[in-house]
Amino acid sequence: MIKALLFDVFGTVVDWRSGVAREVEAFFTARGIDIDAAAFADAWRAKYQPAMEKVRSASRSYVALEVLHLENLDETLGDFGLSASVTRAECAELNRAWEKLPPWPDSVPGLTALKSRYIIAACSNGSIALMTRLAKYGGLPWDAVLGADIARAYKPQPEVYLASASALGLAPEEVMMVAAHNDDLAAARVAGLGTAFVGRPTEHGPHQTADLDPTSRWDVIAMDLEDLARKLDA
Amino acid sequence: MIKALLFDVFGTVVDWRSGVAREVEAFFTARGIDIDAAAFADAWRAKYQPAMEKVRSASRSYVALEVLHLENLDETLGDFGLSASVTRAECAELNRAWEKLPPWPDSVPGLTALKSRYIIAACSNGSIALMTRLAKYGGLPWDAVLGADIARAYKPQPEVYLASASALGLAPEEVMMVAAHNDDLAAARVAGLGTAFVGRPTEHGPHQTADLDPTSRWDVIAMDLEDLARKLDA
Repeated sequence: MIKALLFDVFGTVVDWRSGVAREVEAFFTARGIDIDAAAFADAWRAKYQPAMEKVRSASRSYVALEVLHLENLDETLGDFGLSASVTRAECAELNRAWEKLPPWPDSVPGLTALKSRYIIAACSNGSIALMTRLAKYGGLPWDAVLGADIARAYKPQPEVYLASASALGLAPEEVMMVAAHNDDLAAARVAGLGTAFVGRPTEHGPHQTADLDPTSRWDVIAMDLEDLARKLDA
Repeated sequence: MIKALLFDVFGTVVDWRSGVAREVEAFFTARGIDIDAAAFADAWRAKYQPAMEKVRSASRSYVALEVLHLENLDETLGDFGLSASVTRAECAELNRAWEKLPPWPDSVPGLTALKSRYIIAACSNGSIALMTRLAKYGGLPWDAVLGADIARAYKPQPEVYLASASALGLAPEEVMMVAAHNDDLAAARVAGLGTAFVGRPTEHGPHQTADLDPTSRWDVIAMDLEDLARKLDA
């Protein structure tokens, strides 16, 4: 009965930590500044959930994720004592690191196989603008780019899943959420979607502790997106 | 400075008349009913602009195009004296004719070439649901599916062009509208977008009178989408 698969993107489809660290490294090396790029990427990303939480709690209205990323970059530069080293234009340039993230090795072949049988769509907290550029960078063959921008809300708020299914003209039970994060799947399940867990044990680097394993009996549990394609007979 | 191309789809990228007529022919032949399928397609399509006009004039709120298509199908069946011959479920099935329209021969190679240099996105009055299925049917390699659903309005209302550019994080002048219809381009120009005319002299069949030629000095004038790719150095 599943007709479309919705995918979390950061962590599930692309390796944001390696990609951001690589861009951060290149950016500061070009300016003669030595930095722990992976620590910078982690610090930048650590501000991601708190920034979205302000929108979820309605203490600010919806803004696209790249706006939050840029604000978070400002703060991270401050944390690293680098605020004076970077101009506004350079910040905007570095913020585009999130458009240049490498897909995991299985992502493009897995998505391509899944696309032959299902509608496949991004359902990220990243905006359409960001997801479109990320797909172009990595060759991600989405049929549609949905997610936060469609609902003007951030996952795990239910309207993101429901608006994405609705945009495809489908009922929640005709759609399956695919994610490497148990909380994303838990929210999708409450919204009535099917659920598929994909393990990404190094998303947060070698010392990851969260989301190493599925914490519930999701409808499908897969090693990666090629494994998911096999398990869904795609 | 153009970074993205927005495409009208019905007529510009796909041959709706042949596609709808083919589905109508197959549908009624299977039921032992003889019908002029091209005339039926034309009659169905003739109700398209008046139906959208009710939304544009705010005499009804936005509904997705497939809802209008289904209402228009009901009326067209009445016009042809066929209302009693078709069940509600069959109407819904026939309404899916709009998801199965053949691309013009140059569309897929032209879009593929243009995609190598630009973001390419559907900017149709068709919904995301309809455009996504149409793209899957014809292999249209969109980077994103935008248009009426994003703005909850119908072209040529300016918010459709503006919301589509904005969804890509681009200013209107960084985006070019591509269409076979002069009125679509005129509205896009007023909204600040670049304009490219693509000739589709048989969209309405062999006796077409409208849009045979560009009626203004659009930024680019092309024979077809492969020609457009050459003229945009893609």
